[in-house]
Amino acid sequence: MSKYDMIVLGSGPGGYVAAIRASQLGLKTAIIEKESLGGVCLNWGCIPTKALLKSAQVFEYLKHAEDYGLTVEGADKDFGKVVDRSRGVADGMSKGVQFLMKKNKIDVINGYGKLKPGKKVEVDGTEYSADHIVIATGARSRELPNLPQDGKKVIGYREAMTLPEQPESMIVVGSGAIGVEFSNFYNSMGTDVTIVEFLPRLVPVEDEEVSKQFERIFKKSGIKVMTNSSVESVDTSGDKVKATVKTKKGEEILEADVVLSAVGITSNLENIGLEDVGIVTDKGKIIVNDWYQTNIPGYYAIGDIVHGPALAHVASAEGIACVEKIAGMHVEPIDYGNIPGCTYTSPEIASVGMTEAQAKEAGFDIKVGKFPFSASGKASASGNKDGFVKVIFDAKYGEWLGCHMIGAGVTDMIAEAVVARKLETTGHEVLKAIHPHPTMSEAVMEAVADAYDEVIHL
Amino acid sequence: MSKYDMIVLGSGPGGYVAAIRASQLGLKTAIIEKESLGGVCLNWGCIPTKALLKSAQVFEYLKHAEDYGLTVEGADKDFGKVVDRSRGVADGMSKGVQFLMKKNKIDVINGYGKLKPGKKVEVDGTEYSADHIVIATGARSRELPNLPQDGKKVIGYREAMTLPEQPESMIVVGSGAIGVEFSNFYNSMGTDVTIVEFLPRLVPVEDEEVSKQFERIFKKSGIKVMTNSSVESVDTSGDKVKATVKTKKGEEILEADVVLSAVGITSNLENIGLEDVGIVTDKGKIIVNDWYQTNIPGYYAIGDIVHGPALAHVASAEGIACVEKIAGMHVEPIDYGNIPGCTYTSPEIASVGMTEAQAKEAGFDIKVGKFPFSASGKASASGNKDGFVKVIFDAKYGEWLGCHMIGAGVTDMIAEAVVARKLETTGHEVLKAIHPHPTMSEAVMEAVADAYDEVIHL
Repeated sequence: MSKYDMIVLGSGPGGYVAAIRASQLGLKTAIIEKESLGGVCLNWGCIPTKALLKSAQVFEYLKHAEDYGLTVEGADKDFGKVVDRSRGVADGMSKGVQFLMKKNKIDVINGYGKLKPGKKVEVDGTEYSADHIVIATGARSRELPNLPQDGKKVIGYREAMTLPEQPESMIVVGSGAIGVEFSNFYNSMGTDVTIVEFLPRLVPVEDEEVSKQFERIFKKSGIKVMTNSSVESVDTSGDKVKATVKTKKGEEILEADVVLSAVGITSNLENIGLEDVGIVTDKGKIIVNDWYQTNIPGYYAIGDIVHGPALAHVASAEGIACVEKIAGMHVEPIDYGNIPGCTYTSPEIASVGMTEAQAKEAGFDIKVGKFPFSASGKASASGNKDGFVKVIFDAKYGEWLGCHMIGAGVTDMIAEAVVARKLETTGHEVLKAIHPHPTMSEAVMEAVADAYDEVIHL
Repeated sequence: MSKYDMIVLGSGPGGYVAAIRASQLGLKTAIIEKESLGGVCLNWGCIPTKALLKSAQVFEYLKHAEDYGLTVEGADKDFGKVVDRSRGVADGMSKGVQFLMKKNKIDVINGYGKLKPGKKVEVDGTEYSADHIVIATGARSRELPNLPQDGKKVIGYREAMTLPEQPESMIVVGSGAIGVEFSNFYNSMGTDVTIVEFLPRLVPVEDEEVSKQFERIFKKSGIKVMTNSSVESVDTSGDKVKATVKTKKGEEILEADVVLSAVGITSNLENIGLEDVGIVTDKGKIIVNDWYQTNIPGYYAIGDIVHGPALAHVASAEGIACVEKIAGMHVEPIDYGNIPGCTYTSPEIASVGMTEAQAKEAGFDIKVGKFPFSASGKASASGNKDGFVKVIFDAKYGEWLGCHMIGAGVTDMIAEAVVARKLETTGHEVLKAIHPHPTMSEAVMEAVADAYDEVIHL
C-alpha cells in the first residue's frame, strides 16, 4: 500500500493548489481525480466561460466598430469555433496543471476515490494511505425538483458550455454569476434570452445600486428580465421547452429551445465514504474548524464542500491555509469578510465587503461615496462610460466596510480594495495614494473622495 | 480690480484640480486659460491619445477576429473618423471641466495671463489680484536644434493627433510614453513606423526586462526599432522627409512622410512674468519647497513647471497638496517615490517604485519575483498571454521597493501596488490578500509569491 504524507481528493482549484503547496513544504503528496485535472473551475467553470465571454466581447466590438471610426463587412460568429476556442483554453490549462503536478513531484491517481477509516483512500480497488487526507471534491449544478435537468432541453452550466448548436432562444433560471454570464454570452451570440429570477433583483448578492444599473444595461442589450418570478414546471414533451413561470401578475408560459438551470450548486458529498469514516456534515457541507480539520483527525475539507463562499479563490486560499497549518507554519485564519466576488459580464461586476444595506443592518454609521465612470476621462476615451465605483466607510473609525464596482475591467480593479482592506486602510490613505491618470482606477480614489466630500470630478 | 483668494494660471490637470479643491475649501477662486479648459492633458495629451489607441485596439480585434471564433469579410479604418472620435472625446471632457468650474463657482478668465509683482496677474490689459497665485502653465513638446518642428513634416504630439491624412510612413524620434503610443497607433492604422531611440532600449525609464519584452512585442507587430540611434538632421525639401540617423554601425538615411519628434517636453516659463516678479528658476523649472511655494511669498508653482515627474496625476496631487496647505489643513508632502507611470500601448506598461537596477544601485539586498501572464488562466481565456508582473522587495525588511507590469489592462492594475506601498505593506500581506479568480490581478499575488518562493502556478 502506497503511503503518502498527504493525499488530496479532487483536483479543482482547492485540491491542486493544496497539493502544490504541500509539495513545496516537503510533503510527499498524491492527488486523486476522476476526470480532468483542474476540476470544474478550470474545465467547466471560471476559465472556459471567460473564453466564451471574450468571444462575445470581441463580437460586440465587431457589431459596434463604427463607434470607433472603423468599418466592418460581413461580421459573424461561428458558434462551433467559439465553443472550440473555449475548450482549447480549458484543455491548455488542464495540461498546465498536469505539468505543475509533475514539476512538484505530486503523484496523480486517476480514478474515483473513496475515503476509508484509518486515513486511507481507496481508488478503484487500490488502497492508499496518508498522514493527512484533504477532501476537495467540489460541487455540481444544483437540481431543483421542478426543474429536472435532462442535459438536452433543461441543462446545467456544463452543457451550456458545449451546446452542439446555438439555440435560438433560451430561458435562464437564476441570476447569480453563472446565470448572468451565460445570458450575456448567448444574447451576444444572437440567442433570444430571458432571465427568470426568484428574488426582486438580478445579481441579488450585490449591492442594490449595482443590481439596478446592471438590470438597466442588461435590458438595453436585449435580454428579457423577469424578477420576482419562478419556474414552476417545465414541459419538454414538444419540440421546444415550455416553462410555466409564476410572476407577481400570475402565471405565464414561456417557450424556448433550452432552459438553463443556474440556481446554485450542490456539494459533492455522496459516495465518497464520509459516513464510513464518520465525518460530520451539516446542511450539505462538511463541518470544519479554522484550519479545515473535520471531526476525524487526519481528515480535512476545503472548497465548495465546506461553509463559506463557493469560489475558486476561496478554495485555493483554504487549501494553502490548511496545508501550511499541517506543515507547522504560523497561519492566520482566512478573513471571510474580505473575499472579493466577480462577475464577468459586460459590464463586469466586482465587490468585496458589505453592501450598503448590510452595513446599515450591522448598525454602522456609514459614509457612502460613489463615482460614475461617465465622469472618467479614461472611460470616455475607451467608450466604457457605463457603471460606477461605490465605497462604504464606517463614519466613526474610517474602516473601509465595502467596495462595489460595475463597469469595464472592474474585476481586475477590486484587488486594490482587497489589499487596502487587508491592511486596514482608512479612506484618507487611499485618497492620498496617487492613482495614475487616465485610468479607470481613478474612480476608486474619486469614490473615496466623494465619501469624504472631497471629490474633484463630480 | 477683481480680488480673489486664489488665482490659478493655467487650467491643465494641475490648475483646474487646484482650483476645484480651493473652491471646496472656501477660497474665492479664478482660473486663467489661454486655450481650452483642461490643458494639454485633456485636449492634446492623455485623453485624446487614449481615444486613438482604443480605436487601434478595436481595429486589432477586427483584424484578428478569427482568433475568437468570429468572421469578418472586410475590416477597415476611416482615419478621419478615428481622429474625429478622439477630438469629440477631448471636447466632451473640456466641456466637463467647464461644468465643474461653474458648479464650483470658479471664475474662468479667458486669455493670456502674465504675473505681476504684488500678487497680481494681468490678462489682456486687465489686472486681477489674489492672496495666493498658483502657477500651472504646464509644458509643450521639446524641440531639438537638429529636429526643428515645422508642424507639417516634422511634428510634435499635438499635430500627430490631428493629421489631416494618415501618413504612409512615419519616423518616431524618442521612445518614451508619447513616442511609443503614437508608434502603436499609427502602426495599427497601417502606417509604416520606425522608432529611433538614442538610448540602448525602448521605454528606457522602465525596468530593463519590461523594455526587452516590449521591444519583442513591438517588433512582432511590425514596428521597426532602432536603438542606440539618433537623428542628426532632417531634410524636408523634397516630397518626403529624409532623416539622417546615426547608428552604432554608421549613418543611415531614412525616408518617411512625417517625422514625429517625441523627445520630451519643455516647461512653459517664458513670457509669464516670472522675471518681473523675481521668481527663481533652475534648469527650466521653477524652484519650490514641499508645499509648492516659490521664493516669492504668495506665488506657488505646480505640475510640469516644477521638478518631479511631468505627469497629469502628479500635477493634480501637487495642486491639491498646495491648496490644502494654503487652507491650513494638515498635509503630508507627496511621496515622489510612489508615483505610478503608465504607457497605454498594446501591451500596456505600468510601474511604480524602483526598477531592479535602481534597487541594486541603491544598495538594497533584494528579492525579485516575476509571474508571466502566459501562466494565467484569465490571460489565456482572454487571449492576452503577453507580459508579466515583476515585483522587487527589500530582503531585510520586506519593503515593496518596486512593481513593474507589462500586459493587457495593467494600467488599471498598478493602483493595487501604489496603495499597498502607501500602506507600507509587506509581501506576506499582499500574498494573503485573496485575489479573485480568474483575473489578471492574480499575477500580482503570484509574483509576490514567487519572490518568496511560494508561487503556485509556475
